[in-house]
Amino acid sequence: MNLLLISNSTNPGEPYLDYPKHNIREFLGPEPVEVLFIPYAAVTFSYDLYEEKVSERFREAGHKIISIHHFGDPVKAVRDAEAIAVGGGNTWKLLKIIRDNNLIKPVRDKVTGGIPYIGWSAGSNVACPTMMTTNDMPVVQPDSFSSFDLIPFQINPHYLDANPEGHAGETREQRIMEFIEMNPHLYVVGLREGTMLEVRNEKIRLMGPRKARIFKQGIPPYELGDKDDFSWLLKNR
Amino acid sequence: MNLLLISNSTNPGEPYLDYPKHNIREFLGPEPVEVLFIPYAAVTFSYDLYEEKVSERFREAGHKIISIHHFGDPVKAVRDAEAIAVGGGNTWKLLKIIRDNNLIKPVRDKVTGGIPYIGWSAGSNVACPTMMTTNDMPVVQPDSFSSFDLIPFQINPHYLDANPEGHAGETREQRIMEFIEMNPHLYVVGLREGTMLEVRNEKIRLMGPRKARIFKQGIPPYELGDKDDFSWLLKNR
Repeated sequence: MNLLLISNSTNPGEPYLDYPKHNIREFLGPEPVEVLFIPYAAVTFSYDLYEEKVSERFREAGHKIISIHHFGDPVKAVRDAEAIAVGGGNTWKLLKIIRDNNLIKPVRDKVTGGIPYIGWSAGSNVACPTMMTTNDMPVVQPDSFSSFDLIPFQINPHYLDANPEGHAGETREQRIMEFIEMNPHLYVVGLREGTMLEVRNEKIRLMGPRKARIFKQGIPPYELGDKDDFSWLLKNR
Repeated sequence: MNLLLISNSTNPGEPYLDYPKHNIREFLGPEPVEVLFIPYAAVTFSYDLYEEKVSERFREAGHKIISIHHFGDPVKAVRDAEAIAVGGGNTWKLLKIIRDNNLIKPVRDKVTGGIPYIGWSAGSNVACPTMMTTNDMPVVQPDSFSSFDLIPFQINPHYLDANPEGHAGETREQRIMEFIEMNPHLYVVGLREGTMLEVRNEKIRLMGPRKARIFKQGIPPYELGDKDDFSWLLKNR
């Protein structure tokens, strides 16, 4: 499998999807690829606008995007795809429309068959067994939380360490501790902004300037960096 | 109806459930009441421990708590209750166990019949039509997001204005803007920490040192304070 699972589209103060475009270029390689884009996580802006923003950045990386909303038959669009990119936004809306359009198995079949998958934020979250480590508000109800299940562990995108000063709500760590309490068989990787996981030939590496935080029930949370091995996470199915 | 819907149990640096205890005392009145406590939002600590913490504070307010987990028949416990308190924690686990135990209608019947309902954090969220304005991580999947529907609008507890410096994830306002885009018929009240809504005799008032932020599709978000009328929110069913 070939996966590029990015924490966040955009670092503060930078243009949309700018920082990971070099990684996207390297991941997809020098030959131009036409990438099927899944824009369903967009809520407050149109799919056309979303495609345009993403298209610009992929063009800079030497590749072409076409959004699935232009196809009358989304399942066929997936079956014909050379590569798939799933954009960020609201994970609930993303998963609901993926499931309503019966895309779980077609995407899984294609990606386990070898075509590249790029996800950022919500798009990384739905690569996991379920979307249950999302940070998003459940603005719609999908019929199930099960997602593409391309990897056997959960990613928490936009992982952050602290709440704003004086805020009493749960920290991200507390929320993930609740998740592992209720789902003790699963590892969770807290993927900090500016970082991503690349999965290739049964190997995983972390890229970016920050460490990832690893959570599993019964083990104190700990940190792994870009020199550390993450590939063992693939064996825990 | 008599509802006390509190944003958060505890202000930073204070003992658990300390700041609202005066409001709870005033809300329940001078006669000692035995309050049925619903502790299901607890994930990483026991129902016994949760009951103990809450019990201490209610005792200071002149009232008694007994947790529903001591009853073999939770529906009967609700039917016999003089008052109901629903504690904070993880809203998903709270709603799942409420629904698994078939408590939606019994609680709704009792509270629309006049017994007092006190909720904080997740416990305020489940007083709404659905739990869909929660901030919590979906650590379990309830069969539906529908909750007690005691009020015809949504509360976002722990409402906060800003992300930590340098964090690119959605702000709370952006998340609620997504909610109203997908749910245009519903008002959302962003209830800041340290504040609460009291519903009594078809009147609502805001209590606490901060304003609430009101969201509805098609209207720019705006603020209402403790001198403003909130009662119109009850008419929007």
